[in-house]
Amino acid sequence: MNAPQVREVPIGLRATGTRRESDSLGEIEVPAEHYWGAQTQRSLIHFDIGDDRMPKAVYHAYGYIKKAAAIVNAHAGRIPRWLADVIVQVADEVIRGDLDSEFPLYVWQTGSGTQSNMNVNEVISNRAIQLVGGTLGSKDPVHPNDHVNMGQSSNDTFVTAMHLAAAAAIDDHVLPAATRLREAAAGKSSEWEHVVKIGRTHLEDATPLTVGQEWSGYAAQLGDAIAHLEQTRTGLYRLAIGGTAVGTGLNAPPGFGQEMAAKIAELTRRPFTSAPNKFAAQASCDDLVRTSAALRALAVPLFKFANDLRWLGSGPRTGLRELILPSNEPGSSIMPGKVNPTQAEAMLMVAIQVAGNDTAVSMAGGEGNFELNAFRPVIIKNVLHSARILADMMDHFRTYLVEGARLNTETLHHNIDHSIMMVTALSPVVGYDQAARIAHYALDKGLALKDAALQCGVAADLYDRIVVPERLTQPGVPSPDGGTRR
Amino acid sequence: MNAPQVREVPIGLRATGTRRESDSLGEIEVPAEHYWGAQTQRSLIHFDIGDDRMPKAVYHAYGYIKKAAAIVNAHAGRIPRWLADVIVQVADEVIRGDLDSEFPLYVWQTGSGTQSNMNVNEVISNRAIQLVGGTLGSKDPVHPNDHVNMGQSSNDTFVTAMHLAAAAAIDDHVLPAATRLREAAAGKSSEWEHVVKIGRTHLEDATPLTVGQEWSGYAAQLGDAIAHLEQTRTGLYRLAIGGTAVGTGLNAPPGFGQEMAAKIAELTRRPFTSAPNKFAAQASCDDLVRTSAALRALAVPLFKFANDLRWLGSGPRTGLRELILPSNEPGSSIMPGKVNPTQAEAMLMVAIQVAGNDTAVSMAGGEGNFELNAFRPVIIKNVLHSARILADMMDHFRTYLVEGARLNTETLHHNIDHSIMMVTALSPVVGYDQAARIAHYALDKGLALKDAALQCGVAADLYDRIVVPERLTQPGVPSPDGGTRR
Amino acid sequence: MNAPQVREVPIGLRATGTRRESDSLGEIEVPAEHYWGAQTQRSLIHFDIGDDRMPKAVYHAYGYIKKAAAIVNAHAGRIPRWLADVIVQVADEVIRGDLDSEFPLYVWQTGSGTQSNMNVNEVISNRAIQLVGGTLGSKDPVHPNDHVNMGQSSNDTFVTAMHLAAAAAIDDHVLPAATRLREAAAGKSSEWEHVVKIGRTHLEDATPLTVGQEWSGYAAQLGDAIAHLEQTRTGLYRLAIGGTAVGTGLNAPPGFGQEMAAKIAELTRRPFTSAPNKFAAQASCDDLVRTSAALRALAVPLFKFANDLRWLGSGPRTGLRELILPSNEPGSSIMPGKVNPTQAEAMLMVAIQVAGNDTAVSMAGGEGNFELNAFRPVIIKNVLHSARILADMMDHFRTYLVEGARLNTETLHHNIDHSIMMVTALSPVVGYDQAARIAHYALDKGLALKDAALQCGVAADLYDRIVVPERLTQPGVPSPDGGTRR
Amino acid sequence: MNAPQVREVPIGLRATGTRRESDSLGEIEVPAEHYWGAQTQRSLIHFDIGDDRMPKAVYHAYGYIKKAAAIVNAHAGRIPRWLADVIVQVADEVIRGDLDSEFPLYVWQTGSGTQSNMNVNEVISNRAIQLVGGTLGSKDPVHPNDHVNMGQSSNDTFVTAMHLAAAAAIDDHVLPAATRLREAAAGKSSEWEHVVKIGRTHLEDATPLTVGQEWSGYAAQLGDAIAHLEQTRTGLYRLAIGGTAVGTGLNAPPGFGQEMAAKIAELTRRPFTSAPNKFAAQASCDDLVRTSAALRALAVPLFKFANDLRWLGSGPRTGLRELILPSNEPGSSIMPGKVNPTQAEAMLMVAIQVAGNDTAVSMAGGEGNFELNAFRPVIIKNVLHSARILADMMDHFRTYLVEGARLNTETLHHNIDHSIMMVTALSPVVGYDQAARIAHYALDKGLALKDAALQCGVAADLYDRIVVPERLTQPGVPSPDGGTRR
Repeated sequence: MNAPQVREVPIGLRATGTRRESDSLGEIEVPAEHYWGAQTQRSLIHFDIGDDRMPKAVYHAYGYIKKAAAIVNAHAGRIPRWLADVIVQVADEVIRGDLDSEFPLYVWQTGSGTQSNMNVNEVISNRAIQLVGGTLGSKDPVHPNDHVNMGQSSNDTFVTAMHLAAAAAIDDHVLPAATRLREAAAGKSSEWEHVVKIGRTHLEDATPLTVGQEWSGYAAQLGDAIAHLEQTRTGLYRLAIGGTAVGTGLNAPPGFGQEMAAKIAELTRRPFTSAPNKFAAQASCDDLVRTSAALRALAVPLFKFANDLRWLGSGPRTGLRELILPSNEPGSSIMPGKVNPTQAEAMLMVAIQVAGNDTAVSMAGGEGNFELNAFRPVIIKNVLHSARILADMMDHFRTYLVEGARLNTETLHHNIDHSIMMVTALSPVVGYDQAARIAHYALDKGLALKDAALQCGVAADLYDRIVVPERLTQPGVPSPDGGTRR
Repeated sequence: MNAPQVREVPIGLRATGTRRESDSLGEIEVPAEHYWGAQTQRSLIHFDIGDDRMPKAVYHAYGYIKKAAAIVNAHAGRIPRWLADVIVQVADEVIRGDLDSEFPLYVWQTGSGTQSNMNVNEVISNRAIQLVGGTLGSKDPVHPNDHVNMGQSSNDTFVTAMHLAAAAAIDDHVLPAATRLREAAAGKSSEWEHVVKIGRTHLEDATPLTVGQEWSGYAAQLGDAIAHLEQTRTGLYRLAIGGTAVGTGLNAPPGFGQEMAAKIAELTRRPFTSAPNKFAAQASCDDLVRTSAALRALAVPLFKFANDLRWLGSGPRTGLRELILPSNEPGSSIMPGKVNPTQAEAMLMVAIQVAGNDTAVSMAGGEGNFELNAFRPVIIKNVLHSARILADMMDHFRTYLVEGARLNTETLHHNIDHSIMMVTALSPVVGYDQAARIAHYALDKGLALKDAALQCGVAADLYDRIVVPERLTQPGVPSPDGGTRR
Repeated sequence: MNAPQVREVPIGLRATGTRRESDSLGEIEVPAEHYWGAQTQRSLIHFDIGDDRMPKAVYHAYGYIKKAAAIVNAHAGRIPRWLADVIVQVADEVIRGDLDSEFPLYVWQTGSGTQSNMNVNEVISNRAIQLVGGTLGSKDPVHPNDHVNMGQSSNDTFVTAMHLAAAAAIDDHVLPAATRLREAAAGKSSEWEHVVKIGRTHLEDATPLTVGQEWSGYAAQLGDAIAHLEQTRTGLYRLAIGGTAVGTGLNAPPGFGQEMAAKIAELTRRPFTSAPNKFAAQASCDDLVRTSAALRALAVPLFKFANDLRWLGSGPRTGLRELILPSNEPGSSIMPGKVNPTQAEAMLMVAIQVAGNDTAVSMAGGEGNFELNAFRPVIIKNVLHSARILADMMDHFRTYLVEGARLNTETLHHNIDHSIMMVTALSPVVGYDQAARIAHYALDKGLALKDAALQCGVAADLYDRIVVPERLTQPGVPSPDGGTRR
Repeated sequence: MNAPQVREVPIGLRATGTRRESDSLGEIEVPAEHYWGAQTQRSLIHFDIGDDRMPKAVYHAYGYIKKAAAIVNAHAGRIPRWLADVIVQVADEVIRGDLDSEFPLYVWQTGSGTQSNMNVNEVISNRAIQLVGGTLGSKDPVHPNDHVNMGQSSNDTFVTAMHLAAAAAIDDHVLPAATRLREAAAGKSSEWEHVVKIGRTHLEDATPLTVGQEWSGYAAQLGDAIAHLEQTRTGLYRLAIGGTAVGTGLNAPPGFGQEMAAKIAELTRRPFTSAPNKFAAQASCDDLVRTSAALRALAVPLFKFANDLRWLGSGPRTGLRELILPSNEPGSSIMPGKVNPTQAEAMLMVAIQVAGNDTAVSMAGGEGNFELNAFRPVIIKNVLHSARILADMMDHFRTYLVEGARLNTETLHHNIDHSIMMVTALSPVVGYDQAARIAHYALDKGLALKDAALQCGVAADLYDRIVVPERLTQPGVPSPDGGTRR
């Protein structure tokens, strides 16, 4: 066939009513104003379930795959250049999101994602046909299967699209937001490096530390979670593409997987490679299972971080009152003047949702059979959901809670003055048993620690040399001469 | 104040730009074309997280609450009749969904749901003000807190709305769909009452049963799950309303909870009552935790049902091939003519999602502190999500898979003819050990069971009298005289 | 065969080395000092995995089943009386736990539990043979399959034993312990009925309630969880027995299931009945899935209860300090005098374990195929584990924490005196907006609420008439004349 | 004090009745035949909950910690050499498991693990006192806190012991067993490299692959899971030791953490280092949360592997019958001659248990507060349980199922001859649509693929050149001239 002329036609079909489209099961009416074809329409009818649509990010990822395939296939002479060019042009529209309204399918569909792949194939076919002035639904001169899907199967491309979409969500959203939050926590740690506070273990008063030390823990937990997520997501860079139907690569030329991965890497600027074993890559979603777990492993320290902050900020009069949280919104429809740690609550809920999502991903991950894991849509839905709400939430939590948090130094001082657990510093000098007696004595009598210590026979100057809150925030064994061996 | 005239004004604000609204934290610009006020706007800014919006069903439920409160408060003379009337009028608009676009808030917000309650209060206030010709944002003559929220707190109303929404989802959608599916399964059970097939345990050949018996199991499992869900959801009929801020009922008159529950029951035609202990009702979401578990307990037999059907329908040439499933869609973008058990796969994924949702609900359910469970939005989101996808999925599964399933009688007969496990019937006659020898002999030699039995010394007429597949599908101990003691 | 004489032989085999036992796969050496046979031995070899043994309660339950079967079979003349008598005698030994050491199998075995059933059959057979003076391993005159297992399959008996064991655990341990804890909480609620404290929502100060009201919430949550568990466990009373291999009842006489259920009910004094649909009863473990969820639904309020108590008891100097918890143990190896809320921590951990167990049960519950759920051992292990640790934990929590908890009235008074949220009572009188201004004024200026109210124009006598903490713990709308409308 | 003489006394206390021991809460009777002291006894009384004991591996790990601390402290002159020597001697007994019976505490105890740390301190103290001829319970001359616990807190040592125990379980058991199983799968993959079989996607017939390719997928999945677990467990090599009570290192000399980590590394021959941030290391169990997830991520491909094998082995007459699994045990108490895929079922159950355990670990991981995660016992119990049952199960699964599995070549050939999905190879030549018509024609008419193709107009020689099963298991696009472009 000679190269048809590609016209400049804006996206959109000015038609009403329906159009006949066909697939191997026969003909079916589709809405005339949409590009999709028969298989998309059948899926819409059979899977009108709930309101969960396949995430648009999956289609954008598919745009890259179809573009890469057209280029690679044309380069090898399997399709003519003009055909590749028009597929590439439409694929770019898909990538940019310009055709998002043409991808209406639900998450609850075939477990392979075939219907979403065919949705992409059909839309690209018809949009390309429109551009070259052909007849919609004719599959000519751009066939959804023979051309747009050339050398591909849903079984290799859908999981490839899942990897692309998940990698993008993590690289572009989760990791940057987590890093920003880690830095904000580290900033607070520096800012409050020398502010002494009473520590708490089991919720009970413990030995002192600085607020900066406490926040260094939040930053370190986030740093570790980031490193683990970075490491884990490298698995997403391995693509199933090239395995076609069952991993063997039938109907794709030798080397197709490698060429596709290289082209996708070039287009997306991410280090994608061809998965070393296509049977594993298509029969499992193990990389996504691990990724989901790594997202949950980020949610776990976020849960702790948010929980600590809402407790430290509790009050304003009868709580722990160490932290003053920003007053973002009125907190009650009935209690005037109430302000609540809403960002922390939202973070806790997001962390819980991520745990729930991960349960689903892990269950679905084990359920593959033979050459295919047919639980892919529920997996990618949950992974992308977790990534999205984590990323957004971390930014909001940082902006509207962490950055505006201030210390209530009055409370911090009061607590240091009244706590008893600095008795620990006396322990190496007077022995654990005697130190315990002093502590119990202080509690029973309602005394300050120093008063109790003196009444129990500790010399005042010894006490004063040893029980110096600032010094107790660092390693060192107090010695009888009152110094601290460091 | 004299009763202002209520004008007939269609929903909608013909304004552009912004309008100043205020709350106890000060003024803020809101989009002029929307009814919502300051607190909604603050929430929109602070919680623009992901794409999970508070389900509209929660707002519709709130419509009933605000309507009931207006009626009850007016009846007791706490607000004038005209004020109640205009609130009722707007509440009806909320109930009908006519104001859905005015409820934009996210799931990830304050854990009490206060922002969604205030969203309702603000929208009703401003819409009512519009109807009486007042100034939007003036809170006069219909104040969001003092009037629309009179006698209420988010702490009692939000969990009340959760119960209303969840009860409606279960009563109106889940239970009817489950019942329809149970009946469809029972219908198949009757249809195939006398068709004998080989049973399978551990996936291995076992003694025969009828297809009808097998399907009676699916129907019975669903029946039990339905009964449990019905029983469990009675907890949802107990409403927290009347407890106000912390369960004591401060700022609500005595009896308010009972009156409200009765009015809500009247309006919704469901048997709502006032929760016997408001402290439990507000500090926990236990009824919703139990409801979520009951939804999961429905998903569990659905998982088994769908899994069985896709295995029984596996083929077309190399699988179990007992069942012929409807060909709804082409199954592959690369393998022509392939048809897959897509409804079953979607059901399996839905069941897994429900399990994941339930994990989140259960975790959130335990996290309440003191007088409030502040993890409500994540709970109601997941419960309603589970209810929705289960209900829809059951209907689709029934329509597009169960009802169209047919038997492959050829395979069923072939299996009966070739299976060895009917040797079990010989066991009471020849003893377990001899029967085992016959079975192993048949397997080792590749013989039909009868041939093996005869070669092992069983008399042909004894065999023929005992090993009658149809008879083996019922209770009864074969006896040496070849009859079966029943 | 003539009735052999049953001798009085104490349990025990005075033999060393090994004994040959056989099954349909051939002969195998078993330890001579044990009663078990070939199939038990094979399982021991093939499944020496971890350290999780099938819970003894399952074997005790099996004792009832084998006893009932012997009685029922003898009554119908299918086995001689003397044979039934000796089986009953040994079954009673099993029930009493006297043969516990003969049941060594692991949880991780065949998914049907067949190996544990055969373990019971073999042990009863050999012990009975010992009693009648026969040869161990000869299966004569008491055959493990033909006699002890007569009319039974593992497929119906194992799940029957699971129901018996789970019902006993719940009836005899979980429900009584839960009831005791509920009563202890109710007792504290009565004791502290009139002690006013500041409420907390979102961890933030809220309006007051009495300590008794707060604890009534704990009691009510427990009461609801108990009622739900009672209701749910009725499903356990329906027994699969009678379905034999695949639910049809092959090799069991008609009516066997009913007779067995009646006999088991008589022996155990629990209202067991025959499951109405044996196919559902054997192909699923749905009743146990629901039971596990109900145990988790008990763990959820226990989590909240324990969490509240450890927070309320936090201190001794810098926490919330409302509650004084018993000092059961020294709390730290390094911090002398430290005491921690250890019972609460243990309860939180138990609740989390129960949630984890429930995840496993629910996953396993869905995985049945065709006529059998072959994930039974992991289900019963987790259900019984949850029941056991919940029951024990509730008793310990009650004894060592709840019953010894005391109030720190000093803190309670201080909090009431300093909280600002009683401004809520002014709201119906001065309006929400003005009340909010008073609250913010108090906070900004560090004032007591009354001082702030007066400075904002509220009359002192009005304030004093309205803001009466005790009165604010009950329903009622404060009115401008200073009374409270009740 | 002069160095006392250390006598050679075998382990054991020849005493009956009780002995008085004391701690800071006073005196208490302990069983005279045990070494433990007051705090162990109090824990035994207060936490007699269920039957879950703290895993012995935790105590063995503690042996290393106490030994290292004695050496480091003596080296720095903080305790005399003889005191270090005797502690080292007893610590070696702990490490060897010789004192296992002295560590009776339950998992459900204080959330910090303090009671288990004190159990170790007390036992070492008393055993050392015995060795030097002192008075048990006198804490002289070896004090449990001042000497055995010198420079340590439970807060840093317990999580250090958790890391040691988990690292050992993974390094010594899980990874080797996983590697052995991976190699067994790879061996089967090589063995069956050239055996062609029909592939299955969605359980439905698909294009062919070799059995070796299928098994290469199992091996690759395991290889990836192993690599991820190896990477993840490096986090376990970072030790909290040195942080003491709240992470600051109070009462430990500067550098103590580094010296301890180095000494522990030397003693255990694992690359332990000092955790870079002790606040994170003690306030969280994030490394264990990640480890648990990595164990679950190993269980996920194991679930798929086991599930595939039991399906492929299903039969013997009516299942998929591609694989012949070893006959390890009789499979039924009622159905003679039945053999079941019991190792696969056990593996599926283990995988599910690991998922349940992981749910618990993840929940507990988020629940830390401030300077301590007080949910450590439930975390280490579940991590070690998962590691143990996975390791054992993999070895059994390999030995008793994988290694003995054989192919049913008859079935494999039959399936290849009868499948229709090789029509896919025609698709690049005749087009997807025509290929689909051929497939549907074959199915509708019950024809072999070739017959259908010929009747649909495909030339016989073209068919024969293209549809060559072996060739379809490799990449390559069939071309009209009948070759395959590779």
